[in-house]
Amino acid sequence: MSVVEDISRRRGGREARKALRARPIPREEAAVRPGMEGGQYRPLKERDMERIHETALKLLETVGLGQAIPSCIEALTAKGAFMNEHGRLCLPKALIEDTLAICARDFVLYGRDPKHDMEPWGNKVYFGTAGAAVHIVDVQTRTYRESLLADLYDCARIVDQCEHIHFYQRPITARDMLTGHDLDINTMYACMAGTSKHVGTSMVAPEHVTECLEILHYVAGGEEKWRARPFISQSNCFVVPPMKFAEDACRCLEVAVRGGMPVLLLSAGQAGATAPAALAGTVAQAVAECLAGLAYVNAIKPGAVAIWGPWPFVSDLRTGAMSGGSGEQALITAACAQMGHFYRLTVGSAAGMCDSKLPDVQAGYEKGVTASLAAMTGINLLYESAGMHASLLGFCLESLLIDNDMLGSINRNVRGIEVNDESLSFDVIANVCIEGPGHYLGHDQTLSLMQKEYIYPALGNRMSPKEWNEAGRPDIVERATARKMEILTTYYPEYIPTEIDDLIRSKHDIKLPREVMQPGDPRWFT
Amino acid sequence: MSVVEDISRRRGGREARKALRARPIPREEAAVRPGMEGGQYRPLKERDMERIHETALKLLETVGLGQAIPSCIEALTAKGAFMNEHGRLCLPKALIEDTLAICARDFVLYGRDPKHDMEPWGNKVYFGTAGAAVHIVDVQTRTYRESLLADLYDCARIVDQCEHIHFYQRPITARDMLTGHDLDINTMYACMAGTSKHVGTSMVAPEHVTECLEILHYVAGGEEKWRARPFISQSNCFVVPPMKFAEDACRCLEVAVRGGMPVLLLSAGQAGATAPAALAGTVAQAVAECLAGLAYVNAIKPGAVAIWGPWPFVSDLRTGAMSGGSGEQALITAACAQMGHFYRLTVGSAAGMCDSKLPDVQAGYEKGVTASLAAMTGINLLYESAGMHASLLGFCLESLLIDNDMLGSINRNVRGIEVNDESLSFDVIANVCIEGPGHYLGHDQTLSLMQKEYIYPALGNRMSPKEWNEAGRPDIVERATARKMEILTTYYPEYIPTEIDDLIRSKHDIKLPREVMQPGDPRWFT
Repeated sequence: MSVVEDISRRRGGREARKALRARPIPREEAAVRPGMEGGQYRPLKERDMERIHETALKLLETVGLGQAIPSCIEALTAKGAFMNEHGRLCLPKALIEDTLAICARDFVLYGRDPKHDMEPWGNKVYFGTAGAAVHIVDVQTRTYRESLLADLYDCARIVDQCEHIHFYQRPITARDMLTGHDLDINTMYACMAGTSKHVGTSMVAPEHVTECLEILHYVAGGEEKWRARPFISQSNCFVVPPMKFAEDACRCLEVAVRGGMPVLLLSAGQAGATAPAALAGTVAQAVAECLAGLAYVNAIKPGAVAIWGPWPFVSDLRTGAMSGGSGEQALITAACAQMGHFYRLTVGSAAGMCDSKLPDVQAGYEKGVTASLAAMTGINLLYESAGMHASLLGFCLESLLIDNDMLGSINRNVRGIEVNDESLSFDVIANVCIEGPGHYLGHDQTLSLMQKEYIYPALGNRMSPKEWNEAGRPDIVERATARKMEILTTYYPEYIPTEIDDLIRSKHDIKLPREVMQPGDPRWFT
Repeated sequence: MSVVEDISRRRGGREARKALRARPIPREEAAVRPGMEGGQYRPLKERDMERIHETALKLLETVGLGQAIPSCIEALTAKGAFMNEHGRLCLPKALIEDTLAICARDFVLYGRDPKHDMEPWGNKVYFGTAGAAVHIVDVQTRTYRESLLADLYDCARIVDQCEHIHFYQRPITARDMLTGHDLDINTMYACMAGTSKHVGTSMVAPEHVTECLEILHYVAGGEEKWRARPFISQSNCFVVPPMKFAEDACRCLEVAVRGGMPVLLLSAGQAGATAPAALAGTVAQAVAECLAGLAYVNAIKPGAVAIWGPWPFVSDLRTGAMSGGSGEQALITAACAQMGHFYRLTVGSAAGMCDSKLPDVQAGYEKGVTASLAAMTGINLLYESAGMHASLLGFCLESLLIDNDMLGSINRNVRGIEVNDESLSFDVIANVCIEGPGHYLGHDQTLSLMQKEYIYPALGNRMSPKEWNEAGRPDIVERATARKMEILTTYYPEYIPTEIDDLIRSKHDIKLPREVMQPGDPRWFT
């Protein structure tokens, strides 16, 4: 007798269903898992992708990139690049083809905990945060306040508890860090203190990268162990669109690559401002820029781990302001994801942010439309998919938790629909129609599929209007606040063991107070 | 000199952009139009569709449908159907194949105004309402009240003003109509009084269909004119899943088909309750049921206009309650849309409703995810895509307006991304990078594409946090209420001319007071 039969025999229908729902299910049998395979949505045709590729090659060979630093010029000219008459570094087709022949593919992005390792290749999809918001959304007062270092740690702890958020790239700028040095070291520290999922962060100067690597060696238990399972990647805006290298970022990139830190090669143009208003042109420019970045990385260290990150954004052309929640944003992110598949690269791009300032209905649909369409392309890493508001200016911890529900729902679609003899259910339908009872409510198939075919929101409300009214018309943002406070006041994972933390704090200027990282945090308990 | 150059020469950048944005643009040049071509998202593989088709055929031939009325049995047995030993009407494969060979395809669904005619075939997508909600959401008090006849008229007027809502199927039940007769006649009347877009409605008894046809003949200017451009379709739940005919609905169907009224063949099973919990099985059952409906219609009148409507819904298996906002809902609606394309039928299904009771962030993401994924399949008619809450129990007029913005954003994705020499923008990029100014803000291409490549929300807020704060932190639901009141107190289209209205009112019991249909409506002006 199966568990299902056993439970349903012993209990009545509704109670049996509740018991089944509560029963733990092995991860591999659950309705969704990290890294489901997408790719069912393909906005670009094959010929479209070829034409974008051809345009990118022509841009790289004839327009080239400005402001290359000497080490970049040296590395790339050794591989066939040349400076043109405008002082721009041009990359011929053969160099790009050589790059694509040798670059890293099918690499794991590691979590501190191996259960969070990601395999971001093919059409596998992972969801995560990102950004550099300068505000935290206060949902109670409907206002924005400055984002702080402790917020980074709090966000990390919430992400660590969110089933459908698979990695944590730093979403905010810690504005209480007054120097670039303090910012870089402490951002990385606060992120990895709060989650054992893969962390992405950013650095502004090459010597900070070196210092971060020292810290990572301590945490990993030595350089060799760090290099075997690098659990932090560097989000690197190596290019200032259109088609110019960012000098400091390039210097940071080189140190990261040599230090075994995966890099996200991020080109963040804005259509109509720093990229063409024509969406195909925006995609072509981003593709060209990210191919240049890939050539650069591979010229420094062939086969270095790099995530290919064309991240174009959209302008509202009435004002020039960014509109990350627009329909056009979904479209260009989806197209960039497809270009990643065209090259068979690990591709990460941004969707799921919104223009709305608060977690309201506008935020919901902007996030729903952009994240779902981008995900369905089989994008490997979907950045900015949780928590982000105001086109990257405001981050909301309540939204992290609400977006986690949304991403679960999207992930169910990424998984898709299995069609086989069992799922087609001919025998089940015939049985119910002919033998009775004329419905499927108590059928074994129904009970056995409760958690395998369906997912359930943690915060989303599915009550009838009557039940909802009787329950006092609960508000989802209030529920999210309650859950947020529950996590922040009780969940203090020890991802940096005390003896290692002592070592780090003795050698580096760690600004996150220890009392914030343990029960009784004075922020909540005073 | 182009208009763009002319305007931008005479004015500064930002002012020029504002002027261009305000300039009327021909509909065929706008970023989106009704009936954009989708189909870029295909959750089912070819072989999956074949297997669903084979399962549906086997269900129809061996399980058949119960409760067929005599006229249905007579019409279908004349075409090769037979009664099996369980008293169920079975439809052999040859009958389905014959049906698919002769059924109507590529038919127009007419608006009262020809500018709203729809061509719902191929991968063309149209968005509309639907449902039979019994409540109206009051966003001020966060409560639900009974839905009334005047609400149907109000919803119609709002839909008439919404650019991205292309048809109006009655979304609510007028609970002040105390008999089936009053409900059927007045629902149709209130809908067509408020919009010149195509209207869908429903009827509960065949004699009401006859009476509705009489009214439609008056409005059209005679039966011949009605039959030439039928602007009302009948939403018909001819089947009670699993696999049983609905007797009254079948009688209504026959009168509609003979009277030249397009029918929507709607199968509304609920996975885990009245359809299998396995999603492939739910789709197979819905496909079988709707193929039976199509055979029935064509047995009565070969080539009669019928929209193929597999509309399966999802249960939350913990409670058995419907969950129209779930990820699974997006998936099965998308799969049904694809099955419609498999048969090359005009397919309509439901997505864009939500489980949330209010226009909040949950409502937004549920609508965004489900409507966008369903739309991207190239579904011809997307019902329930605006205004619906609480899994079809509550309808919200504010949400109609907010969802209109969302549907515009989705429609931009349905249109997709054009890749050609001009849009690839090689020359523009080269020019900006090499000649300067290093950005695209004032570029001719940017100005010329403002309305052709981009759409703008009517209610959605794209301000920066600073601007938003200075503007008093506007709330989107409050803005929607203001816009709703503006429409309802000023927009009184005369879609039923007075002399025809006099005629209709003299012969039929029209319950919508005339004073509600003109300026000074006592509901608002007392």
